[in-house]
Amino acid sequence: MDSFMQAAIEEAQLGLQEGGIPIGSVIVHQGRIIGRGHNRRVQNGSAILHGEMDAFEDAGRQPASVYRDAVLYTTLSPCPMCTGAILLYGIPKVIIGENQTFMGDEDLLRSRGVEVEVLQDPTCVALMESFIAARPELWNEDIGE
Amino acid sequence: MDSFMQAAIEEAQLGLQEGGIPIGSVIVHQGRIIGRGHNRRVQNGSAILHGEMDAFEDAGRQPASVYRDAVLYTTLSPCPMCTGAILLYGIPKVIIGENQTFMGDEDLLRSRGVEVEVLQDPTCVALMESFIAARPELWNEDIGE
Repeated sequence: MDSFMQAAIEEAQLGLQEGGIPIGSVIVHQGRIIGRGHNRRVQNGSAILHGEMDAFEDAGRQPASVYRDAVLYTTLSPCPMCTGAILLYGIPKVIIGENQTFMGDEDLLRSRGVEVEVLQDPTCVALMESFIAARPELWNEDIGE
Repeated sequence: MDSFMQAAIEEAQLGLQEGGIPIGSVIVHQGRIIGRGHNRRVQNGSAILHGEMDAFEDAGRQPASVYRDAVLYTTLSPCPMCTGAILLYGIPKVIIGENQTFMGDEDLLRSRGVEVEVLQDPTCVALMESFIAARPELWNEDIGE
């Protein structure tokens, strides 16, 4: 397991321990994690802090040159909002834990030139399968359904 | 002037008074503002709190039925991130103050069935023209350039 995806999974597990939705993300620049986060819908009552957004917020204000030389790791295929944030900042590469339980806007990412790699990692799949089975209404809220 | 766009402009002006980027937004449901906000890059050191995102956060956790019966007003054409948030939550209609100083992802919104109306309001244009002339580096940072 790639250590950066492992860090994203640890974020997801931390979110679960807090009573939240188990999705985590890290942003890596030149081999170093510059931002990490997890979904905070439950914890902060937030409609915008998906795992990827929380990682962008944690990274803080960065120059364009940093974003354009960064890789975003996320345990789950990015929804349209997180996809948009990736496009806004010109992140060139996204590594996705799994897209079996939810398929995000990967086609849009690819159509705008972002390199997308999907690992179908069993740990990521198991995290979401258990969570969706346990809290379907909370999951639907998080994806606007 | 539509009173809801006026409220979005007031948010933008408030942001300017705080030393921030003058972009504001409100989300309206059944004739009532349920969320309002303005860009907080400078004020909060935030990479994700564009005006529209701040309005989503202010509205808090809403059921899908509310978002799908809401109108989002923004003083400036929505960037890819804010466009993605609009798509995630299925906001059916977006009213934009102006797209002369910055053209966001309006084509993507329309291609996904969102009704988009652009007012080309002179107050919105003037707010951004003055700001971009005064702080071009800050503006470029906000749009990932």
